[in-house]
Amino acid sequence: MEESFVPFRGIKNDLQGRLAFYKKDWTGGFSAGLSILAPTTYIFFASAIPVISFGEQLERETDGALTAVQTLASTAVCGIIHSIIGGQPLLILGVAEPTVIMYTFMFNFANSRPELGSKLYLAWTSWVCVWTALLLFLLSVLGACSIINRFTRLAGELFGLLIAMLFMQQAIKGLIDEFRIPEREDPNAVEFQLSWRFANGMFAIVLSFGLLLTALKSRKARSWRYGSGWVRGFLADYGVPLMVLVWTGLSYIPTGTAPTGIPRRLFSPNPWSAGAYKNWTVIKVLPTYSLLHPKEMLDVPVLYIIGAFIPATMIAVLYYFDHSVASQLAQQKEFNLRKPPSFHYDLLLLGFMVILCGLLGIPPANGVIPQSPMHTRSLATLKHQLLRRKLLAAARKRMSENASLGQVYASMKEAYQQAQSPPIPPATKQGLKELKDSTLQMAARLGSFNAPVDTTVFDIEKEIDNLLPVEVKEQRLSNLLQAVMVGLCIGAMPLIKKIPTSVLWGYFAFMAIESLPGNQFWERILLIFTAPSRRYKVLEDYHATFLETVPFKTIIMFTLFQAGYLLVCFGITWIPIAGVLFPLMIMLLVPVRQYMLPQFFKGPHLQDLDAAEYEEIPAMPFNSTTDIEMLSRRASFADDGEMLDGIFTRGRGEIKRACSGPILASEELKTVEGPQVADRGGSVTRFRGDLSPRQASKGPFTSKPSHLGKTG
Amino acid sequence: MEESFVPFRGIKNDLQGRLAFYKKDWTGGFSAGLSILAPTTYIFFASAIPVISFGEQLERETDGALTAVQTLASTAVCGIIHSIIGGQPLLILGVAEPTVIMYTFMFNFANSRPELGSKLYLAWTSWVCVWTALLLFLLSVLGACSIINRFTRLAGELFGLLIAMLFMQQAIKGLIDEFRIPEREDPNAVEFQLSWRFANGMFAIVLSFGLLLTALKSRKARSWRYGSGWVRGFLADYGVPLMVLVWTGLSYIPTGTAPTGIPRRLFSPNPWSAGAYKNWTVIKVLPTYSLLHPKEMLDVPVLYIIGAFIPATMIAVLYYFDHSVASQLAQQKEFNLRKPPSFHYDLLLLGFMVILCGLLGIPPANGVIPQSPMHTRSLATLKHQLLRRKLLAAARKRMSENASLGQVYASMKEAYQQAQSPPIPPATKQGLKELKDSTLQMAARLGSFNAPVDTTVFDIEKEIDNLLPVEVKEQRLSNLLQAVMVGLCIGAMPLIKKIPTSVLWGYFAFMAIESLPGNQFWERILLIFTAPSRRYKVLEDYHATFLETVPFKTIIMFTLFQAGYLLVCFGITWIPIAGVLFPLMIMLLVPVRQYMLPQFFKGPHLQDLDAAEYEEIPAMPFNSTTDIEMLSRRASFADDGEMLDGIFTRGRGEIKRACSGPILASEELKTVEGPQVADRGGSVTRFRGDLSPRQASKGPFTSKPSHLGKTG
Repeated sequence: MEESFVPFRGIKNDLQGRLAFYKKDWTGGFSAGLSILAPTTYIFFASAIPVISFGEQLERETDGALTAVQTLASTAVCGIIHSIIGGQPLLILGVAEPTVIMYTFMFNFANSRPELGSKLYLAWTSWVCVWTALLLFLLSVLGACSIINRFTRLAGELFGLLIAMLFMQQAIKGLIDEFRIPEREDPNAVEFQLSWRFANGMFAIVLSFGLLLTALKSRKARSWRYGSGWVRGFLADYGVPLMVLVWTGLSYIPTGTAPTGIPRRLFSPNPWSAGAYKNWTVIKVLPTYSLLHPKEMLDVPVLYIIGAFIPATMIAVLYYFDHSVASQLAQQKEFNLRKPPSFHYDLLLLGFMVILCGLLGIPPANGVIPQSPMHTRSLATLKHQLLRRKLLAAARKRMSENASLGQVYASMKEAYQQAQSPPIPPATKQGLKELKDSTLQMAARLGSFNAPVDTTVFDIEKEIDNLLPVEVKEQRLSNLLQAVMVGLCIGAMPLIKKIPTSVLWGYFAFMAIESLPGNQFWERILLIFTAPSRRYKVLEDYHATFLETVPFKTIIMFTLFQAGYLLVCFGITWIPIAGVLFPLMIMLLVPVRQYMLPQFFKGPHLQDLDAAEYEEIPAMPFNSTTDIEMLSRRASFADDGEMLDGIFTRGRGEIKRACSGPILASEELKTVEGPQVADRGGSVTRFRGDLSPRQASKGPFTSKPSHLGKTG
Repeated sequence: MEESFVPFRGIKNDLQGRLAFYKKDWTGGFSAGLSILAPTTYIFFASAIPVISFGEQLERETDGALTAVQTLASTAVCGIIHSIIGGQPLLILGVAEPTVIMYTFMFNFANSRPELGSKLYLAWTSWVCVWTALLLFLLSVLGACSIINRFTRLAGELFGLLIAMLFMQQAIKGLIDEFRIPEREDPNAVEFQLSWRFANGMFAIVLSFGLLLTALKSRKARSWRYGSGWVRGFLADYGVPLMVLVWTGLSYIPTGTAPTGIPRRLFSPNPWSAGAYKNWTVIKVLPTYSLLHPKEMLDVPVLYIIGAFIPATMIAVLYYFDHSVASQLAQQKEFNLRKPPSFHYDLLLLGFMVILCGLLGIPPANGVIPQSPMHTRSLATLKHQLLRRKLLAAARKRMSENASLGQVYASMKEAYQQAQSPPIPPATKQGLKELKDSTLQMAARLGSFNAPVDTTVFDIEKEIDNLLPVEVKEQRLSNLLQAVMVGLCIGAMPLIKKIPTSVLWGYFAFMAIESLPGNQFWERILLIFTAPSRRYKVLEDYHATFLETVPFKTIIMFTLFQAGYLLVCFGITWIPIAGVLFPLMIMLLVPVRQYMLPQFFKGPHLQDLDAAEYEEIPAMPFNSTTDIEMLSRRASFADDGEMLDGIFTRGRGEIKRACSGPILASEELKTVEGPQVADRGGSVTRFRGDLSPRQASKGPFTSKPSHLGKTG
């Protein structure tokens, strides 16, 4: 994205880009059929559970002025709006931890001012929202998002890890609190006796670790050895919500033995009770005042209306950053997205939603991490499954007609092209090229291209995973559905209240851990603790080419700097009022990266560790490394797609090189003769034979058994 | 072992065989230095913890007539005797679950007879022990152990799994009991209030699962990516006892919050208190009577002295089977033991120890599963580390002199031969041959044999693990030391009592799970639940060649029969008095295997699933498969020896073929020229290239990344 600050140009470009795909965004979603429910449910839980828990937190901090009903309503309303008229439908919206921190700060402020008090708290936050929205409009119109390229991996991954730390902190704090008497409860109740409190705490440990461990296990179900493919697929797709159900069920086993308060369960007002809506400005004032002139907003003294500008700047900076980075992380290069981004327009829309939420008296929602990248990743899995099914059907049909590999490929190519929406731009044709390349490799291995495929030897079910490129099912339906489901949660509150809080803490820890793989900053932290003799494994698993190009000491220094910066940011969130400044700390990383870091690190090293597009170096020539990189890359999909998640854990810098290496770049498949293909296969084998032993035993390209076995 | 029933011949052969190595048994142990402490501690914990827990169980069942002090004393005394004058020092002795069951049954019987009562219970068991010993002498003298070959894998593995089930049952039962009021305790105590009982149970779940999961993780520390090699090695060697310490420490965190009884800890009499020895016949009667004429034994009515023969037959059958199978499992073929077995003499010695224990009034100890095979396995790890260190030193010295690979090999060969005690019999020279073969392969890969070794390319640290054959440090020291340490436990009782019972239950579950890998019966059960598309993985991981030679349906039928038989045996242990018959059920498997099973299964299939030496078929010709099998086999040791444990999980049938395949069977290393070696390397590569794709993608030989990477 070029940096352009011509007013409205960014918004216009975004709208043009996305409108061209708008119809496809819907048809594509519906064409996936019921399988769209897997990513939908996955994201729904990842979105709803924190929102409910943040609602609980807000209720405690604001003396009940805001509850889980409000946070759910905001997430649902903003999610529905964004999924329908938003730009980038991969972006997931929700009430996030920073918002909770800001709203708590504002409550404490309002409470300390007799002119406002808790009575005018929400009315005052409405003014904050108005100012925030104006600032967001300004940023959006002036094209502030075009500097998103300056948010390098450094800032984005640091922010991602900070959010993971906040989640983990909440999990630990929550678990410790299970041993204590909750503030708002009656300390004389049976369940708060020392013995029952201790029992509750221990039970909470069992439930939260139970959820955490089983959820982590179930996500990997696809690679299990046991159970049928259907069961494994189901567990991998729906295992996490299923585990929430299972552990909630298990929490009822001691019913009858333990008093009703054990284990503690979610506390939230019944949305159907009379008092639940008392704070909803609109609903309350509607009979008397129109929507746009809520009486309470006008009750706020003018000085405070103007003063609301100060928190508004903080929130605007926060939302600008959070929304853009969440969107950016959901659109990483390794996902090979086909549809354009929409940073400016989405920020503009966010401004409108902030005003709406402000008037409704509910905290606004913005783009969230880690849910947004989780959403894209789950849609990549979906797309993989869909492509797999289509290409399998096409290939099987041809194979039953005793076709040659060339014919089978042609039919798969056709099926692949049909499955594309939008059609692949002729300039890149990446997916197709990859399909062709991998088919060529397979031909090399099978030795024949034009002879009928020997079905006893050629197991298309296994091969297909090696053929498919990484693609994402880009559509709006999953986002809309998850937002609607979040909205339905308000109605299902009586059911949701059955979830033990400890299961929630386990889920928080799960989310924190799930967000780590793929974060290169995290991988580098682990690298520090990796035994020197095993560092090559990191290279193998994550294709972290920087390990080969950057001296280890430099990697350590860079990582330590980043870790120190992270700890400072984390520490700031602990400071009572200055805590709201932490978004500024992350914004500050942009100049730090651009002007300060180059003084301490060599340009090429910095480039390898933290590629910034504004200082992009030309891509490497492909021929030297590509054959093998292609081979190793293919293998990531091996074995029933179980490694699917693995492919997204590779860094951006590497993908740039690894993605685009053709074996026979310009040759058309049809012109390739059988013997020639066999020759190529031979040369590939020879090439591997020529590797120096060091490369052969340590290199990043030898760790993929399935591939090596298949091409050998 | 040939079947010979000439009286005393078996004992004589055993004595002759073992006496030749007796001195080496001690010098070899001391030569290992401090590293002998790793297997010693490992086995000490595996031996002491169940013995303490069985003591607790006995105390409950016998109204305190027998306690943990007695079971520990018996285990220590018998262990020390066996380690010094026993035949097979790999065999670990201990008071086992079957003994506990028998002693409980005898207590209930004695209690129900007014002539005996609980007063003469121990005196009566002394008579049982006398009869048992006589029967054991008879069995030993008549050479009953020579039919040990008829105990095929079928019976041994079934018994192993039965023991694992009993351990797991104890773990589960123990954990459930943590929620209940213990029988002998005051139900009105604070810690047995409903709330504290519930708290105790939940705490127990946390502690036991914590121990189980961390112990399982720590055993695999060698393959961790993080931490230095030293830390990882230490954790793998001492992680399990360390975890017992850690979780015992953690169990003290709520001190001050919870009453002292929470969590429950081991209950055992203080060995220094006056009453602790009241049942020890010898010690009590010594002032008045001589050891051989304890008054109480003569008080038993004659009818009951004769009647004691009935339980004695059961115990004799049990000990005959248990002792022999434990010894057999500790000497499996895949361990490549060098020293001879000693079944007959060990059974004779067991007879003497049974009399001794009977007179002392303590329950006798016999060979135990799974500790005995665990002992051998830990000594194989030790031997691997020792060999590794020696060969590394030799190779490094030569490499620093700029030697060629051939010279490096010669120095390693020398070091290897020096490390052998006893020297390898010239007929087999297995270890050396393997060392040579693997060096040849390495030479093929490096391309040069006589040129100086390029140390930047050749990482001896990594290579060495591929070179070493499986061997066991056969000596007596570790067995003696662990028995002494068990004895010291009696003195350390006040410390041992600090271990929470729940940590014990976790340890029981750990022992059950640790005994599973390598049990082919267990692998076959898992195979039933393995998705059809992933069955080839079982073939890869366990080298289960029967998967290729036996139809899947036959495997299933055989496994279901075995599982049904196991369940029957397990069910029998639940029947109050007939329960003691379960050893007979397992003995019954010998005729079932020999006469019944061949009617339902084809001979070759049965042979592949359950090789019986009495119907051994000639080994397969090697040339067809060996190259590749050798290659894949080598790879098991790859990567810092982390896969060491894996090599023992392969079945017996396979080893027979896989172990003995030479690449250049008769060529002497020195005559091999560089180019020729390179040629061989080429042919290996070509050979792999010639594999049909099915083999290449599915075969058992393509799953070893390190190997393929290194030879390619």
